[in-house]
Amino acid sequence: MSVTAIGSIALDSLIVPSGEFQEVLGGSASHFATSCSLFCKDLAIVGVVGQDFPREHIQYFQDRGVNIDGLKVEAGKTFRWKGRYEHDQMDQALTLDTQLNVFENFRPELSQSSANPEFLFLGNIHPALQNDVAQKVTARLKILDTMNLWIQTAQAQLREVLSKIDVLIFNDGEARLFTGSDNLLDAGRKVLELGPKAVIMKRGEHGALLISKDDVFSVPGFPVGKVIDPTGAGDSFAGGFVGSLAESKEITKESLRRAVAYGNVMGSFNVQGVGVEVLSKANREMVEARFKSFQELVRF
Amino acid sequence: MSVTAIGSIALDSLIVPSGEFQEVLGGSASHFATSCSLFCKDLAIVGVVGQDFPREHIQYFQDRGVNIDGLKVEAGKTFRWKGRYEHDQMDQALTLDTQLNVFENFRPELSQSSANPEFLFLGNIHPALQNDVAQKVTARLKILDTMNLWIQTAQAQLREVLSKIDVLIFNDGEARLFTGSDNLLDAGRKVLELGPKAVIMKRGEHGALLISKDDVFSVPGFPVGKVIDPTGAGDSFAGGFVGSLAESKEITKESLRRAVAYGNVMGSFNVQGVGVEVLSKANREMVEARFKSFQELVRF
Repeated sequence: MSVTAIGSIALDSLIVPSGEFQEVLGGSASHFATSCSLFCKDLAIVGVVGQDFPREHIQYFQDRGVNIDGLKVEAGKTFRWKGRYEHDQMDQALTLDTQLNVFENFRPELSQSSANPEFLFLGNIHPALQNDVAQKVTARLKILDTMNLWIQTAQAQLREVLSKIDVLIFNDGEARLFTGSDNLLDAGRKVLELGPKAVIMKRGEHGALLISKDDVFSVPGFPVGKVIDPTGAGDSFAGGFVGSLAESKEITKESLRRAVAYGNVMGSFNVQGVGVEVLSKANREMVEARFKSFQELVRF
Repeated sequence: MSVTAIGSIALDSLIVPSGEFQEVLGGSASHFATSCSLFCKDLAIVGVVGQDFPREHIQYFQDRGVNIDGLKVEAGKTFRWKGRYEHDQMDQALTLDTQLNVFENFRPELSQSSANPEFLFLGNIHPALQNDVAQKVTARLKILDTMNLWIQTAQAQLREVLSKIDVLIFNDGEARLFTGSDNLLDAGRKVLELGPKAVIMKRGEHGALLISKDDVFSVPGFPVGKVIDPTGAGDSFAGGFVGSLAESKEITKESLRRAVAYGNVMGSFNVQGVGVEVLSKANREMVEARFKSFQELVRF
């Protein structure tokens, strides 16, 4: 099954407890694609980079079999983000610098080969842009990620795009902020009233909660020995979620649950290294082994 | 199987978002017994109350079949605690008043009928007192609860009692404080080195983590519609945990996992009402129904 993902491609500079890292491959589309490509061989990304974008990263996507026809190279510099994590607050990034550069005027344009996917992932960009794509593209399932910035500054546009998508993925804090409800069950039901058939609330180290009209499913986090860098864990989660669904072909209560579990597994790999370091070296056997460990972890 | 629980018995005054409640039955032994008695018919509590302790609460324990030979009534007033919870921070009590009264000089004395239980629960009291009891009593399994106050003020005594018990139950924040490790897997392993065969880290609405030499088990929280009053949820958890183990007779990886799940179920009932309100009216069928829902919640 085909997947098209729209999102940012960035060069991230990270200060984490284990060290400082300059301009590693980052952005929502990069993390999503790294994760999703372990499940899905028909994956396209749509994004923009500047002329300074390292050739090796282009090669990286190609080596993973990711279709990059929709990756525009524009005059100017690539989006850069610089952030820091403190050892006792690894779930919260402190943004030190953001240089949008060519990403500032990003208008997603789907190439012919990525315009009619079965699964469309709308990564965390302005809801107006997400809305534009959601309107144009016919897909079997449209999955959307968002963040507190858009909830605070573009709520009307976010509500509009929610009426056009099938699955909303955000974190529990954002769910509370968006719905005004402290209770995640309430929050989830309020989101369902706006259009989505399912809502997934990521809870960082505490796992994830899936709420749909006929199901409530919860997983704890997969405990990892040491969190190195959480950047992109949410996008790796989304990549595993969409990849697993694309692979299982049917969208059922069972396949949605399994997809959330795979999402968690991919997020847990993500945090164990800097940027895409760990997932880029992972293979499907490692993913399956952790998925089985995860099933064993929660079995009673 | 017989269970003896040692802990506080209090009159709690609570200010919660749904209202104010004066002098309801509280304390670790009360919550533990309310929960554990749904599993175990041979349960004794050891504690102290003042002469003002309402007769109806004595009757309450008797009606539940709890052996109160070890419940001393002393000259003076019963332990009183007053606390407040804010709607957006239901996991954190703000203590408004503490009157230890007769509890200040509490020295647990086990009656003949409660001195040799198969399961000994040492509720959250000063580690020196816990140590004293742990030393005197021979039990198949000794389970201990503690809190940040003792970690900060009586760490040496806490370490001493840990060498004498089998299962430590505390919350994730306390685990981090006690071990100095942010990572719960690390923290759990550090606790195991001190003596316990298993450690359970409660995570409030996020469930619980069990770590033993040969197992790691994690459950998310059971999502409840509305949290009314979290006071005593940890003791209700412990009551379900110990009760389930006492009922299953064998202590195995499987029975420990099931006991943690029952603990979570009992904690989830606890928070849905004030004090022991909900669990005191619950029956075993309701517990089983929620246990099955919990299994369904996490299945994938």
